[in-house]
Amino acid sequence: MRIKLTVSYDGTDFCGWQKQKNGVSVQETLETALKTLTGENIKVTGSGRTDAGVHAAEQIAHFDTDSTIPPEKFCKALNCILPDAVKVIKSEKADENFNAVKSAKVKTYAYRIYISDVILPLKERFAARVSYRPDVKKMEKVAKEIVGTHDFKCFSATGGSVKTTVRTVYSIDILPNGNDIEILVSGNGFLYNTVRIIAGTLIAAGCDKLSEKDVAAAFLSQNRKLLGKTMPAKGLCLKNVKYE
Amino acid sequence: MRIKLTVSYDGTDFCGWQKQKNGVSVQETLETALKTLTGENIKVTGSGRTDAGVHAAEQIAHFDTDSTIPPEKFCKALNCILPDAVKVIKSEKADENFNAVKSAKVKTYAYRIYISDVILPLKERFAARVSYRPDVKKMEKVAKEIVGTHDFKCFSATGGSVKTTVRTVYSIDILPNGNDIEILVSGNGFLYNTVRIIAGTLIAAGCDKLSEKDVAAAFLSQNRKLLGKTMPAKGLCLKNVKYE
Repeated sequence: MRIKLTVSYDGTDFCGWQKQKNGVSVQETLETALKTLTGENIKVTGSGRTDAGVHAAEQIAHFDTDSTIPPEKFCKALNCILPDAVKVIKSEKADENFNAVKSAKVKTYAYRIYISDVILPLKERFAARVSYRPDVKKMEKVAKEIVGTHDFKCFSATGGSVKTTVRTVYSIDILPNGNDIEILVSGNGFLYNTVRIIAGTLIAAGCDKLSEKDVAAAFLSQNRKLLGKTMPAKGLCLKNVKYE
Repeated sequence: MRIKLTVSYDGTDFCGWQKQKNGVSVQETLETALKTLTGENIKVTGSGRTDAGVHAAEQIAHFDTDSTIPPEKFCKALNCILPDAVKVIKSEKADENFNAVKSAKVKTYAYRIYISDVILPLKERFAARVSYRPDVKKMEKVAKEIVGTHDFKCFSATGGSVKTTVRTVYSIDILPNGNDIEILVSGNGFLYNTVRIIAGTLIAAGCDKLSEKDVAAAFLSQNRKLLGKTMPAKGLCLKNVKYE
């Protein structure tokens, strides 16, 4: 039986979603809990990897099991075993064809910043600090240039091994709220570090350090240096993944 | 010279504001940083103690120093030494008569809850989980009964040693926002655990477990058992302290 999980995590103390030799991953934490629960060696497949320190409100994953535990009961049963930093929000029976990676249609990430001269201990865990207030109108202008289907290679860290670097960003919404700004980015998929570079590029644009012309030039030349810096992991959160 | 500090902290990993033998306190963290900075053994006085796990957006403290560091420079200098969990938001010269405890006029605490069947890792650090959605109107009815000048002994944990247990609560505001509720409580001072018991009482009222009559009876009889439970420390945050 295939089970679909909706999982939330505070990524601060994890080495990321994917199992690694050094450090505890979210995947391993879930697989260890499933082993305790079912006795089976179960592989959990997430919709995508999130990097070390990146959070998730609703990550989607699937796994196969021979267990007779009713699908919807996995949520409560796993939560009894899991640490507070990783919890299952929902468990349900999935179609045998459902694949958390391949069936994913739209992923939405939130990048959160706060504007402050000093580090604010109550914001620092889930947002990145910015000293100057970026101009939201200028951010939106550059966001328009990024939305669409492009070769996002310039918006990615080297080291990824993917067949194609063409992706579609469906929308970017910039939501200011007092000294906080949330940047919502939706797309059919993202390369390594893309959302963090989009956030850095929008912030740089908002502080007059680059313009939509630089982004257009970056897409043409694939020159990473024309774009903003890669923002820290802690401000990034996988908000949700849509299927069907 | 007397210096006034505005301090923010994530209380999760501290044993509270006050210096203690077991565990690291916020006070000790600040005093150690001041020793590093000035070479002096400085005692930092906070507007009040916050318990283990309680956060502060703007705690106020004062200290005396012979240092020639300009008052407003203490902020940046201390922040270079302090861990991310405690930061100084502002430092300024204070009148020699200013006393963070005795001069305090109004303290405002925020108690935050979130409504969810499961623990949400992204909310759990700064809020307490409640399974049922409390009725805000019923919470407000009971809040009105608490506002005013009363003997708050029934709204406190035993063990405090204060001259009088009479306090004035100036206002209680209940601010729902989706699945989050923020309860703001302002008063001239609070006994040990009072805000956490006020929060527990309001939540119990919102879930039909008690009414304004129980609160009136508790004030008359001073029977702690008529009130709601003491909510966890993590949902509590000292928002600000007002002087003069």
